[in-house]
Amino acid sequence: MRTLDKHGGPAAARATRRRATPKSSARRAAPPEAGRARVRLDVDERRAQLVELGLSEFGTRTYEEVSIDLIAQTAGISKGLLYHYFPTKRAYYVACVREAAARLVARLELPSDVPPLERLQVGLDRYLEYVRAHGGAFATLMRSGAFADRELADVIDETRATLLGRLTSGMADIFPAPGTLSSPLLQIALQGWVGLAEAMSIAWVEACVAAEGARSNAPPPRADEVRDLLAQTLVAIVGNAVR
Amino acid sequence: MRTLDKHGGPAAARATRRRATPKSSARRAAPPEAGRARVRLDVDERRAQLVELGLSEFGTRTYEEVSIDLIAQTAGISKGLLYHYFPTKRAYYVACVREAAARLVARLELPSDVPPLERLQVGLDRYLEYVRAHGGAFATLMRSGAFADRELADVIDETRATLLGRLTSGMADIFPAPGTLSSPLLQIALQGWVGLAEAMSIAWVEACVAAEGARSNAPPPRADEVRDLLAQTLVAIVGNAVR
Repeated sequence: MRTLDKHGGPAAARATRRRATPKSSARRAAPPEAGRARVRLDVDERRAQLVELGLSEFGTRTYEEVSIDLIAQTAGISKGLLYHYFPTKRAYYVACVREAAARLVARLELPSDVPPLERLQVGLDRYLEYVRAHGGAFATLMRSGAFADRELADVIDETRATLLGRLTSGMADIFPAPGTLSSPLLQIALQGWVGLAEAMSIAWVEACVAAEGARSNAPPPRADEVRDLLAQTLVAIVGNAVR
Repeated sequence: MRTLDKHGGPAAARATRRRATPKSSARRAAPPEAGRARVRLDVDERRAQLVELGLSEFGTRTYEEVSIDLIAQTAGISKGLLYHYFPTKRAYYVACVREAAARLVARLELPSDVPPLERLQVGLDRYLEYVRAHGGAFATLMRSGAFADRELADVIDETRATLLGRLTSGMADIFPAPGTLSSPLLQIALQGWVGLAEAMSIAWVEACVAAEGARSNAPPPRADEVRDLLAQTLVAIVGNAVR
């Protein structure tokens, strides 16, 4: 378990509190003679592999249940090397949530020349695909706020703010009348709708997971039904807020 | 600071892990000769006083910033006695959230002979009054999940489930057609609407607090505007989900 551990022992991990910088001199850190039976990955690949594993593990277990030993074992690396990338379990967890959020934000980035209503529809489709692809992981990560810390709350708040900003500019294209968007009620309505989209998609993915596990008889709604309901509700709520 | 401390020293606090039972023999615990300058309260009153203080303190500061020393001082009791009621700061915090949730649930309990749409409207009025009365405390407590634990997440989940159950039976009165409520899409829609109500009311109370602090020029929406928007959105979302 220690063959790749030249730079990854606990002491080194504690000395390296910051996240390993990709493309730094650490890239070729693994001694060439070590870990013959294991796949050697560069820093970026290793980090990405660990975050993938973390997204899956934290998504299917509680934070407490996730075993760093097991993750290191699955990745085929020493626990010490894992701590080289993420100095604490909490830092590892936050990195996984940050990655999940970054993927979501990137996926929802649509060219501004797409007409606003189509942008909404395509954005919702992609959002729901993303949620579905991550299955239970999404629901667990989104509920994770409940046993995490301020840094995690910041990631979630920043993600919401980014998406809310995009939603608001999208609304400016749909309702181009000046002054409409400065309505305090509309601001609140849009924040409410983001809460609706989160809660509804979590409920949807939980229904999908329950149906897969045959824990539910009723087939879950289709993604396009959920998308249409979200889009219709946005139109209704904005229409009611600005009139 | 130790005059009332006969039953409340740190050792006693650690020995008393469970919450003090109201109406137990501990009720008359305070030694009659102690704390002349302080108001002596019975167990229930003292607990209620501490929870009130906690709701206010945790509502205006982060968890880390809340000082147990300061709360004990404000309550006019020793820190040891505070720990007699709540063995840890976390337990105190969870008790405050539990109380906030219980108050909300009690306030939203309406007689079933009130017509369903009126029940919805009155329920929303009371909900928003409650949110407004607690000002920033509500927003902070609702966001508190982000730096708390599983027990707290359970309180929040149980409260949501209780309110969702009531909402669903209310819908059964509004849409009495058999089978309507078993629609999986409607189930998801109602969970989504609960998320909307939470997010919108948090945004609203934050706008109210910002306006009070003159940190915002735009007057916040009135409670009846927010109520109407929530009610209209519920009708829209349910109508779209069941058709």
